[in-house]
Parts: sequence; structure tokens; C-alpha cells
Amino acid sequence: MSTLTHFNRAGEARMVDIGTKPDTERLALAEGRIRMQPQTLHQIQQGDHAKGDVLGIARIAGIMGAKRTADLVPLCHPLALTKVDCDFEIIDETGSGSEPAVICRVTVATSGRTGVEMEALCAVQIALLTIYDMCKAVDRGMIIDAVRLLEKRGGRSGHWVRDA
Amino acid sequence: MSTLTHFNRAGEARMVDIGTKPDTERLALAEGRIRMQPQTLHQIQQGDHAKGDVLGIARIAGIMGAKRTADLVPLCHPLALTKVDCDFEIIDETGSGSEPAVICRVTVATSGRTGVEMEALCAVQIALLTIYDMCKAVDRGMIIDAVRLLEKRGGRSGHWVRDA
Amino acid sequence: MSTLTHFNRAGEARMVDIGTKPDTERLALAEGRIRMQPQTLHQIQQGDHAKGDVLGIARIAGIMGAKRTADLVPLCHPLALTKVDCDFEIIDETGSGSEPAVICRVTVATSGRTGVEMEALCAVQIALLTIYDMCKAVDRGMIIDAVRLLEKRGGRSGHWVRDA
Amino acid sequence: MSTLTHFNRAGEARMVDIGTKPDTERLALAEGRIRMQPQTLHQIQQGDHAKGDVLGIARIAGIMGAKRTADLVPLCHPLALTKVDCDFEIIDETGSGSEPAVICRVTVATSGRTGVEMEALCAVQIALLTIYDMCKAVDRGMIIDAVRLLEKRGGRSGHWVRDA
Amino acid sequence: MSTLTHFNRAGEARMVDIGTKPDTERLALAEGRIRMQPQTLHQIQQGDHAKGDVLGIARIAGIMGAKRTADLVPLCHPLALTKVDCDFEIIDETGSGSEPAVICRVTVATSGRTGVEMEALCAVQIALLTIYDMCKAVDRGMIIDAVRLLEKRGGRSGHWVRDA
Amino acid sequence: MSTLTHFNRAGEARMVDIGTKPDTERLALAEGRIRMQPQTLHQIQQGDHAKGDVLGIARIAGIMGAKRTADLVPLCHPLALTKVDCDFEIIDETGSGSEPAVICRVTVATSGRTGVEMEALCAVQIALLTIYDMCKAVDRGMIIDAVRLLEKRGGRSGHWVRDA
Repeated sequence: MSTLTHFNRAGEARMVDIGTKPDTERLALAEGRIRMQPQTLHQIQQGDHAKGDVLGIARIAGIMGAKRTADLVPLCHPLALTKVDCDFEIIDETGSGSEPAVICRVTVATSGRTGVEMEALCAVQIALLTIYDMCKAVDRGMIIDAVRLLEKRGGRSGHWVRDA
Repeated sequence: MSTLTHFNRAGEARMVDIGTKPDTERLALAEGRIRMQPQTLHQIQQGDHAKGDVLGIARIAGIMGAKRTADLVPLCHPLALTKVDCDFEIIDETGSGSEPAVICRVTVATSGRTGVEMEALCAVQIALLTIYDMCKAVDRGMIIDAVRLLEKRGGRSGHWVRDA
Repeated sequence: MSTLTHFNRAGEARMVDIGTKPDTERLALAEGRIRMQPQTLHQIQQGDHAKGDVLGIARIAGIMGAKRTADLVPLCHPLALTKVDCDFEIIDETGSGSEPAVICRVTVATSGRTGVEMEALCAVQIALLTIYDMCKAVDRGMIIDAVRLLEKRGGRSGHWVRDA
Repeated sequence: MSTLTHFNRAGEARMVDIGTKPDTERLALAEGRIRMQPQTLHQIQQGDHAKGDVLGIARIAGIMGAKRTADLVPLCHPLALTKVDCDFEIIDETGSGSEPAVICRVTVATSGRTGVEMEALCAVQIALLTIYDMCKAVDRGMIIDAVRLLEKRGGRSGHWVRDA
Repeated sequence: MSTLTHFNRAGEARMVDIGTKPDTERLALAEGRIRMQPQTLHQIQQGDHAKGDVLGIARIAGIMGAKRTADLVPLCHPLALTKVDCDFEIIDETGSGSEPAVICRVTVATSGRTGVEMEALCAVQIALLTIYDMCKAVDRGMIIDAVRLLEKRGGRSGHWVRDA
Repeated sequence: MSTLTHFNRAGEARMVDIGTKPDTERLALAEGRIRMQPQTLHQIQQGDHAKGDVLGIARIAGIMGAKRTADLVPLCHPLALTKVDCDFEIIDETGSGSEPAVICRVTVATSGRTGVEMEALCAVQIALLTIYDMCKAVDRGMIIDAVRLLEKRGGRSGHWVRDA
């Protein structure tokens, strides 16, 4: 039976021993979205060009957030990240009836003894939180949704891709 | 027309001047959830009692995360929080067909010149991220959802409650 | 005779007691520049528009750096900043013979018991350091220069302006 | 033509992928100075001996600052530094007409996939900022100048020395 | 019966609500010691003068540590400290048979809604830890002892002094 | 004659160069205790079960504290820890006359060029400080004692165990 690895037999939390795991190339891709009113999305879209660059600032916050993961998540191992990419996709109301949203996708890589899923998810969350911060004066009701891992490479568990 | 307050007329980002706003009592309540497989939730529930206390650790991470908000969100003002509460509710499969999940609700208060929505949302996100971290070895597909502000008090905009 | 206030009579460092000073409105304006080759400046200028926004990223780094001052400078008091503005001016080679450079100017404000000069200077330095980082692959020889306080308001010493 | 490596083709910032670069021994030497009034320098010089050790405190701040670089500069990779040295040289008025100043020189080393220029420059800036902080009560007009890289070893670009 | 205030009735941790407490002047004095071999103490004493200033560095680490307390202790409120003093006393073997040691005493003050005991104790611990770090190559067996609160002023509980 | 390695010949502090040391498996075990009144210990013991889990929170604080060591201790090298374990033992009054106390023991491991004694000691201190914080409302007089290294493996100095 599977058990939660962050606890010993007495149920006490620990930072899991990864000392005997080999260094391998690790990669994680995570995604999330923030849903908003059409006019909020419209303001973000305008900023993409000459001014008020909400997504540019959120991207920086996400990248910096990836580096802070082990400070924030109690049992995460500190890792020397070798790559962080943070992309956004705008889902506007002209599509197939889906709600206006900004999707954030983050790829993180390292060469190390444990994976970088947490770093990718943390970056997505901080990036979306930053979008919320910058738009909250015009749209307090925005919702952060569907934050999840999409893909993972490296380590004992090998290549994992979320089912569509 | 409403504009994004974090930018000046040239579209350049700034930390908004709150120097002329009065100190008032501020409160924010935010919520989010993490959806998971029934057996993952079952393992968390068992830990509530004698050992493997996932939610106890996530609560601490959330509270500490609230204090780090201004370090993480670029244009947030640093605030001296006077209260942080972090509660969890378990939604198990025995209910009305809703998916198994843990709901996290965080209340933050301060006496200051600007609100604490960001701190409440940041705490929710870090708490849910910590649950993900502790359970990811058994359920890599968990999804963080519906992170949003529920209520806000204090400041010029007064009392706001999300529509049901 | 003037003495260094950060030391007691035995010459031991301390965080100076500001407990008896009144809260007043404080403001500081600091400035610095980074000198570079003309083609480096040209690349930064192109980025101002559609892509590769070096100055937008440096601005965020500067604002975040202002918030980290008390973590970095050993005897600085922690302060709840109420405003941070970070502006850039481009000095290109078309002028009066001056060398190509980017000037950074930061204004910081708070309502507190001590001034915000250090926060303004720290923001300038981190912003310029970020420009260096983003351009170092094309111009390793850039020089950060003339980082200094321009103006200061509030507190016992009142209004101070640097002589031209 | 050279382009800024911190941006992708769409002009979006990223933490550059260093995953395929080999670990090599890296070293960087950076320098900067803070110019001041003769009597300010005189006070610092007196402190070198029995008490009021401004430079000893600035040295510690610089070394600690080197370790914080990746927290402060958005796109810097986190690196496990293996060495940080921080030296000061006093330029007094008895010389060839040069202005009174303290020069700070920092050497940083690591064994890693990317260089340590940013860490060396960041340490110089925080050390000089700390000198400013400790002396600002007697000399608000001090100027930080000539912060620049002097030398760099390791990595694809090999050994680089600034022209005299 | 007295209960632990950091838990609600369900036994869940929280950052205690101090929102209704008045701002008062707060002060705390804490102390601790590190015991060591006579020759280790001798080396520290020599450093007091011209070089190798262990205590000067430990003092800076203690002052900076006070400012990090709310980052380290999960349920501490962030506080804007107005004063931190860190003193050392050397207990050498020439006395009444007591073991060689360095005593560290830290005074912290603020004007706020909760006390600064934790900040004073945290500063003592980080200062003593820094002494350990700097001397461990010559004396791995040093022991940190007797870290405790000596005095506390301000707040509802008023003036408290440890019994001799 | 032995000298303090954190200083150069001029007595100036430095982060010691570990660049030529090989990576080896490192382990450190440190211990400390907090002494308290019998009824305080009794309250902690009750919390072990269903609610008010003081030791569970202190454990998390200790593990997170280990990761912050290089941020707090000025001349510590940053290290990527591979394992942190934090255990508690309760010494109650029913024993051989020893005073009521909680003992904290922390094991830290890494694969690196320098040891992890400081990380283990820092974790012990932050864990004990957190116990103090959570119980101080009922027992202000608690004392942190006997914080020391018990064992160390790896590196040039090999295996070291404290004499009983």
C-alpha cells in the first residue's frame, strides 16, 4: 500500500532523504489559469503592447517565485534550477464559449536528485497571484483555477504526461 | 473608465502611493481547494488523528506564506499582519456527488493603509501547494482550483462579499 | 564633533534607537546610472517597445529590492513603505558628448520614525544590477556610476536637496 | 548579430537554460568605490582599529549579499558559492589629487554551469551601500561609483580581464 | 486554567489576533552563552583588538537575526523594530571556577501591539550560532547554554524580571 | 598553532574557499533542550495527540530553519541539503530527578564540499525557539540549554562523535 513519504513510521514529518538518488536531468511543466471579466482581459491585452505590461510583470514574479519554492513549502529540498520559462496564453470571449482567462504555463529544469514539480507549480501560482494583484482594483472577483502538473521527466518515475 | 492603478500614465509599473490613505481595520477572507483521488483524501483524513498530519503542516505553511506576500508579489506593500487564521474542510465522496477535495479558507487582518486580500490569497495558495507536495508521491494529478476572495472589509471600498 | 551614530561609546555596532522619534512623512529620491556601449543601449531601446523589455524588468527588480533593504543592510530599520516609483532615462550618444547610459531614479516614501534613503539607494542599485545582468552577454564592461541621494524630506533634518 | 539572451524570440524574459553547460570552475572579481568627504574617511579609518568598525560590518554585508543575488536579480540562476572574499582599500587625500574614497573589491568562486559576475557585483554594491548607511549621518552626499567587473574565469567565454 | 494561546478550541494553530491590543512601548532583554575551551576563548579575545573580530561579526548576525524572527518562527507577528542592541561579556578561566564562555545579551524594542521577546531570543541564538561557526574548526565541542528571557516591558502583562 | 579559518592573515573575515575540496557524503547530528515547568510540559504532551500540536509545528520550523542557515550565519556556504530529520524526546518529572524538558535532535545530510553542522544546530535552535514561542504565554521562564553537536561524518576530519 502506498504511504505518504514525507512522514516516518511514527507519523512525524521529515525532509525525505534523497542522498542515495542519482543526479538526473529533471523537467516539469505546470499550468494554471485566472478567470476574469471580459473588460479585465481587455485591459491586460492592451498592456501587452506599449504600456501597463501586466503579463511581463507576472512572468518575472513567476520566475522569481520558482526560486523561492524551498523557502515556502516546508519539506521541499533546495534545488539549483537550470531553467525557468513562463508563458501566457490569452483565452478571450471570441472562442467557443469558454470564459475569458489568462493561462500560465511554466517549465522548470534542473540536474538533481529530486524533481521540480513543486517549483513549476509554485511559479504558476505566484504568476497568477501577481495578475490578480495588478487587476484587483477593476475586478475583485477573479478566480485562479486548474493549477496542475502537465508533464514530468527524469528520476525513478520517468516520463509522466497528464491524460488529456 | 477604470484603469489599472499599478501603472502610471506612461504604463510604467509602480508601488501605488498609499501615503494619504488613513489606517483602518482591514480583513480579508479567501478560499481555494485541491481536488484529489478518494484514496488520497482518505490518507489525509487518517493523518488528522495520530500521525502524518498533512493539514497541520499545510496550515503552518499557509500562515508563514501570508507573511511572505510582499516578498513574492512585486507591487504589494509590506504590511504588519495582526491575525492569520487558516482552516480546512474535507469534502469526501460520501456527499452529493462532488469530487473529493480539501478546501482551505484563510482570514487575514491588519490595521493599515491598504487591504490584505493578497495575503489571504497567497496563504491559500501556499497551503494548497504544501498539500500537493506531501501527497504527490501517491497522486500526481491533484488540481488546485477555485482560489478566490470571499470577503473584504475596511478601506475606501468598504465591505465586499462575493455573490453566492 | 560628529560621530558615527551606528556605534555606541565602546565602538560596538547597534541598530540605533528610534523609539522616541515621532512618525513623520518621509520621502527620498536617489539616482544612479549604468554606462554602456552605444549598441548595448540601442538594444535596450528597441526592447522598450514590443519585446525584450529590459527596463520593465529592472523596474520590478528595483521596487522589490526597496522592500528587501532591511534584510540586506545590517543596521537598517525595517519600514513599511507606502510608495516606490522607479523611472529610467536614456542618455544616448546623440547628445552633448556624454557617454551612452541609462539613468535610474527611485522615489520611496513612508510614514515612520526614520528615513528611506537606504531603500531608495538600494532600489537604484538592484535596478542597475538587473540591467547589467540582462545585457552582460553583449557588453561585459558596463559600469555602474554616480549612485547617490538627490533629495530627502521629513524627520528632524528636514528637507535636503543635493547641490547641483 | 548579438542579441540579449534573457529573452526568447517573442521578447519574453526567461531564466536561460544552462542545463547543457558543463560544470567548470568559475571566478569573478568586481570592484566599486564610494567617494566621501575627507573627515568621513578619517572617521572610517579610526574605526579600523579599536572601535566603530565600518569596514568590518560592510565586509559581512557584502559576503551575505553575494549569497542573496539570485533572490534579488530576477533572472539569475541560484548558485552554491564556494568562496567569497571582500577587501577594502582606502584612498585618502594625501595622494595624487584623487578624491577620498573607499574601494571595495570582491572575489567570488563556484564550480557550476554559469558564472558568478552577478554575485561579485552584488556583493560590492551591498558592501558600499552599508558604508553609506553607517556614515550617512555625517555625510549625506557620498557617491557610489565605478562598480564594474574586473576579471572573469571559467565557462565558454574563458578568461576575461578588463582593459586598464 | 491556562491554555496555549496559539491554538483555537479545535487545537488548530493560528497567528493570534492582536488587532484589538493597543500600541505600547515594548522592550525585551534576553541572554545566552556559549561555553568553550580556554584556548578557544583566548583566540576570540585576541580578535577583539586588531583582527579576526569574531564578536563583531556575531553582533551583526544577531542584529540581522532579530529582523528575521517572523520569517523563522511560524506564528510570530511581523514587527517594525525600533532598536536592537547586542552585547557580549567574556567569562574567562581566571574567575571563580566558572567555565570559559561568551555571554550574549540582546535588547530589542518596538512600539507595537505585541512583545519582542522572540526577537531578542532569536538574536541571541543567531549570534551564538555565529560564534560557533567561526570557532568550530578549533573547538567542535562548544555548547550553547542558558538562552532565556531576562526582562520584558510593555503590554498587558507589564514589567517582568526573571528571578535571580 | 591552530587559527580561526574564517579570517585571512590580516584578520579580515571571508567565506572560506572550499573549491578544491571533493564532494563527499556529509552528515551531522545536533541536539538541544528546552527546560520548563511541569505543567507546561504537560500541556505540550496533551497536544501530541488530538490538538495543539506544539512539537509538530516546532518540527516544521526546525526543518525550514535548516534551509535558512546560510541566510542567517554570515560566513556559511549555501548547501543543497538532501535530508533533514527532527525528533523530540520528552523528559518528564517522573524520571530520575531531571528537570522537565523537551529534547530536540536534528540530523542533516548533504553531498557536498563542506559539512552540515551549522544546519543541524540552526534547526535545533529554531525548533526550540518555536516551542518557546508557543508556550511563552504560560511559562515565560523556559530556558534553552545544551545545544551542541553530537556527531559528524564526512569530509577531511572524518567521523567525530562527542564524548559521553
